Amino acid sequence: MNDLRKDPVSGRWVIITRDYLLKRPEGEIQTFHENQLKTCPFCPGHEAMTPNEIWRWANPDGSWSVRVIPNKFPLLRIEGSPDRRGEGLFDHIAGIGAHEIIVETPEHLPQYELEDGEQMFRVLSAYKIRLQDLKNDIRLRYGLIFKNVGGEAGAQLAHPHAQLIAMPVIPMNVKVELVNCKKYYELKERCLFCDIISEELDKGKRIFAETEYYVAWAPYASRFPFETWIIPKDHSSCFTCTEENSLKDLGALLHRVLMGLSRALESPPFNYVLHTRPFSLSPRYKQTTIDEDFHWHIEIMPRLTKIAGFEWGSGFYINPTQPEEAAHVLREAMI
Amino acid sequence: MNDLRKDPVSGRWVIITRDYLLKRPEGEIQTFHENQLKTCPFCPGHEAMTPNEIWRWANPDGSWSVRVIPNKFPLLRIEGSPDRRGEGLFDHIAGIGAHEIIVETPEHLPQYELEDGEQMFRVLSAYKIRLQDLKNDIRLRYGLIFKNVGGEAGAQLAHPHAQLIAMPVIPMNVKVELVNCKKYYELKERCLFCDIISEELDKGKRIFAETEYYVAWAPYASRFPFETWIIPKDHSSCFTCTEENSLKDLGALLHRVLMGLSRALESPPFNYVLHTRPFSLSPRYKQTTIDEDFHWHIEIMPRLTKIAGFEWGSGFYINPTQPEEAAHVLREAMI
Repeated sequence: MNDLRKDPVSGRWVIITRDYLLKRPEGEIQTFHENQLKTCPFCPGHEAMTPNEIWRWANPDGSWSVRVIPNKFPLLRIEGSPDRRGEGLFDHIAGIGAHEIIVETPEHLPQYELEDGEQMFRVLSAYKIRLQDLKNDIRLRYGLIFKNVGGEAGAQLAHPHAQLIAMPVIPMNVKVELVNCKKYYELKERCLFCDIISEELDKGKRIFAETEYYVAWAPYASRFPFETWIIPKDHSSCFTCTEENSLKDLGALLHRVLMGLSRALESPPFNYVLHTRPFSLSPRYKQTTIDEDFHWHIEIMPRLTKIAGFEWGSGFYINPTQPEEAAHVLREAMI
Repeated sequence: MNDLRKDPVSGRWVIITRDYLLKRPEGEIQTFHENQLKTCPFCPGHEAMTPNEIWRWANPDGSWSVRVIPNKFPLLRIEGSPDRRGEGLFDHIAGIGAHEIIVETPEHLPQYELEDGEQMFRVLSAYKIRLQDLKNDIRLRYGLIFKNVGGEAGAQLAHPHAQLIAMPVIPMNVKVELVNCKKYYELKERCLFCDIISEELDKGKRIFAETEYYVAWAPYASRFPFETWIIPKDHSSCFTCTEENSLKDLGALLHRVLMGLSRALESPPFNYVLHTRPFSLSPRYKQTTIDEDFHWHIEIMPRLTKIAGFEWGSGFYINPTQPEEAAHVLREAMI
């Protein structure tokens, strides 16, 4: 069982595994090749190469469009109790949780070329169904969906897939967002994200796509060139509450945005993450206004820049592309 | 002039430059080669290739051992006023500050092989003198010393050098440390770092080097394999207050630690950062106990692992090496 350890100085949680990495890992990253089709564990016909399937989008002909499986090398494991305890002045939790793979399409294609918005809707449905299910495990506090595309973004297999990690603590980045949203709400009695969307829609220079239910924009203080956030226009703290017609709208938009990024930046490596409200809050957060003050969203981060000592040491980011310029380029690329 | 922009959701500051990066940068990284000697701007005899020198460790024969120069491509510039203002609900500051290069040796050698502890002491003296000087600029709130070694750690030139960025805000990572140290002090009336050192010295399993004034250890919740922190055993919030004999002791230890990492991990790419107290505090921090509750230290981060969507999305880190095991390996490597 891996350990979850908390650094008392920064408040960061770290998953300490027992793989004992001494040297730089080599040859781990798979880039797309036709000849992977025979060995790819995510391709149709190779279902036996993966652990037992958790969920699938089944088609009438017996095939699948999306498939969810446990990660063969999970960072957190489902069995066990959290074992929350102090080690001297340090905090420890056992590495329990879930680590699942969402195989996003049967097609072994370069990842950003998801077939269409309809397939993206099926993928988003898988995210929703898995989060809804894991929410019932009272040991778990948060479920994070994330996707790594391209070696520089940390992808290890070329077949399009996302991951879900459900964990017994609320991760720091989400906690910081929760705290800042709460502070803003206490001050203004309005949601911070709702105010940002309203200002961005008003100014228009950083928004580059808008649908019935969603907007996509380059945030004012984007960390990365062409960083993109997608958010529902109507207030909602909870991705899993999204209705089908809204999810279809999101699928179409996410597909268009990823195609736009791919076109504008020649298929860049990227990550995206889904920030929704926690499954449950620790006792001290119980009386919170979280459903009023938090707003779920997707953060897409093209990985064109390197992170060095300055960023690690300061928490600053250096972004060589003005968000207004990025929005302009993406607006053109999406037509 | 670059912009400093603050993200209201995360509290992160971002430096937005106007370089307009559209594609992945190419061929920027210089790895060590003998034939760079003719063109390296940091080598002796090429002083005219750099902007005007700010400081040097001068030798009696007219040569230099350490040299500080302005960065030719500064992220922040010294001229101008901070221009702190709101842009709608966002926060903006003009990109003023200082961006200096500390050329750590006249020798064009692979960086980790700093000649000896005595040279490291001269380098640390340069850090101290430059921070002391920049502290007098009342527009600036923080000075961060950092070093990138190896392409994977973001180094662009092979000649051994560190950087100093002085800025008009306190960076988030330092602010988080300040806040957590203050909270701990309010609770215990003791410095958090002093308590950590005392516990680590007591347990002994994560400490791998100790001198008259300093200890080096693998932190309980290390983010990176073989992450190492070095800290003065006696409480001090302020690196620039360090006396000469203590700085010599630190020079010798830092040299031994870097040599140990190099031996154990075959010259890994790494970053280190120096976290000392801010130059000045914003008005709301004025009555703080910062000199009692904060403790300066150096964080060394070997870069053996890749950071992917999970880390970006959560603020979690995944570390495949137990800190206790890392300490054991480094203890052996330093003999």
